[in-house]
Amino acid sequence: MTVKVSVVVGNPKPQSRTLKVATTLVEHLFADDTYDLKVIDLADHQSEIFAWPSEEMSALNAHVAESDLVVFACPTYKATYTGLLKAFLDRYPANGLAGVVAIPVLTGADLTHSMGPTVNLAPLLVELGAIVPGRGFYFVASQMDKIDELVAAAASEYRSNFAKVAFLAGPGDMS
Amino acid sequence: MTVKVSVVVGNPKPQSRTLKVATTLVEHLFADDTYDLKVIDLADHQSEIFAWPSEEMSALNAHVAESDLVVFACPTYKATYTGLLKAFLDRYPANGLAGVVAIPVLTGADLTHSMGPTVNLAPLLVELGAIVPGRGFYFVASQMDKIDELVAAAASEYRSNFAKVAFLAGPGDMS
Amino acid sequence: MTVKVSVVVGNPKPQSRTLKVATTLVEHLFADDTYDLKVIDLADHQSEIFAWPSEEMSALNAHVAESDLVVFACPTYKATYTGLLKAFLDRYPANGLAGVVAIPVLTGADLTHSMGPTVNLAPLLVELGAIVPGRGFYFVASQMDKIDELVAAAASEYRSNFAKVAFLAGPGDMS
Amino acid sequence: MTVKVSVVVGNPKPQSRTLKVATTLVEHLFADDTYDLKVIDLADHQSEIFAWPSEEMSALNAHVAESDLVVFACPTYKATYTGLLKAFLDRYPANGLAGVVAIPVLTGADLTHSMGPTVNLAPLLVELGAIVPGRGFYFVASQMDKIDELVAAAASEYRSNFAKVAFLAGPGDMS
Repeated sequence: MTVKVSVVVGNPKPQSRTLKVATTLVEHLFADDTYDLKVIDLADHQSEIFAWPSEEMSALNAHVAESDLVVFACPTYKATYTGLLKAFLDRYPANGLAGVVAIPVLTGADLTHSMGPTVNLAPLLVELGAIVPGRGFYFVASQMDKIDELVAAAASEYRSNFAKVAFLAGPGDMS
Repeated sequence: MTVKVSVVVGNPKPQSRTLKVATTLVEHLFADDTYDLKVIDLADHQSEIFAWPSEEMSALNAHVAESDLVVFACPTYKATYTGLLKAFLDRYPANGLAGVVAIPVLTGADLTHSMGPTVNLAPLLVELGAIVPGRGFYFVASQMDKIDELVAAAASEYRSNFAKVAFLAGPGDMS
Repeated sequence: MTVKVSVVVGNPKPQSRTLKVATTLVEHLFADDTYDLKVIDLADHQSEIFAWPSEEMSALNAHVAESDLVVFACPTYKATYTGLLKAFLDRYPANGLAGVVAIPVLTGADLTHSMGPTVNLAPLLVELGAIVPGRGFYFVASQMDKIDELVAAAASEYRSNFAKVAFLAGPGDMS
Repeated sequence: MTVKVSVVVGNPKPQSRTLKVATTLVEHLFADDTYDLKVIDLADHQSEIFAWPSEEMSALNAHVAESDLVVFACPTYKATYTGLLKAFLDRYPANGLAGVVAIPVLTGADLTHSMGPTVNLAPLLVELGAIVPGRGFYFVASQMDKIDELVAAAASEYRSNFAKVAFLAGPGDMS
């Protein structure tokens, strides 16, 4: 059994620290060799993001929607997710992320916008049908030197949450 | 294995339709004899809700925090949860619902406030550490004649969500 | 012309720092002798807050609804306003604060919940018909030694905002 | 005295009904010959929206920031504003709409997302420093045959709100 994981990064600049936070979170969530990871850096797809139709974008949208877990990560712009990430999500039809487990991640300059992942990004993902089984994760960009410690704590809470929800699923639903 | 379930109703009037929606949801979530249910109708505890300390309230708070699943249900007042429910939740310390799986339910007169459970009640529960693995459930009060159909659909989506999250927990976390 | 101003404080403890922040804001908004101020400390009315009917509460609700400006101030509980303040606001019918200019104020321990006044308290007041012509004001409680400086800046921004909106009203609407 | 008004439309399709709702609102807010109106249909600027730097976009951003009143109008995508509108707003620095009076407008298929303008678009504009002196306006797209009646009611409420706020500005601030 391999878990299909995607990371979607909504930073207009490629290869950002936000991307690093998201992939580090995945590494702390699952043991090596138990998952396949695809990283979608939307910075590489800005010129296509409003194209319609677009094979390139459709393939990305489909890959994300078929994932078991997706980390959606963004820098904080105006206290919330970027227009770039929203434009990607706008391409889905209603309920387009049904059944996908999602973790919202925002990075920011200081604590001022800490509430963003939980009050802005999580409800957006839930509106699309995604399942967000925990707090949004807010990462203060100046703490890159503590990234492992901070991300490990968030991952640990998420893994604990997965187990709590799994208890409700019962053995019969584990197929 | 018995699932410990609580229903907390934030309607200032006792024995409300909101309570009925919440308990019906529980009946559709779990098979008979697989769960213990305690219903806390906050209407019965209004005179104690601001008392400090209060053995009565502490016992209720503790029971809820020790539940595996809690349905928090309210009529919609001013587009969001009631002050009565908030006053109950205010009694918890930070992270006081850590590890509790929660389903937010709001009832309303029409569709106008449909977003309330997802944008207002869910973030409040998540702030307290609860896990909300799905959409908030909004129930239009005039549809009591279709309660079983509507609640069954919501319960079905939640059960599907539980299974999706359980897949991420893996067999080893099912202890 | 005298401006009718109310301060409503949703702290369950009376005579709080939050009350002090709110009244200081009023002092910075208006020149002495240009306004009448009534302070409603909801801590003094907790035993009546769920009573129905209640002459005491009705009189308070009416006074607030007839004010020109109301500062609604609360400590931050669970990232948002308190149940006590919400219970007071729940007593209004739909649109019960129509035409009242309102300033949302939350105090908190650190910057973590800075977004609370704008994303939680302001929309609640707007739902009741109040006019919130500016940012919610978030005050970090440890900065009481800088209260005058911080409050003066917020008051200055609000006064500037009043003038900007007044420009749109035009001279004919100043009756 | 001429009021400088802008309409910014975040629909990826040009010349939308949403644009019509927004311009109709402006017509109901101000008497003919008392205002200058510029309509910015972001559909016409999609290819530039992520370009950096961009003279075209900078000019648009500047025009909006120098307006006395701006109507920001969008169809509802995923219960909130579009990525296209957000991408336009993301181009501003912090506080980039300081002192601009703004009216948030969302159009939608039914009442389900009625809360969107007040809980999502208004806080975004306020974060940028804009002044939102009233409810967000939500327009159900199927009611285009009643557009004048519905928009007139919204405009009337806004004009009443302007007057209420102007009263607080006092005569001395009307310069």
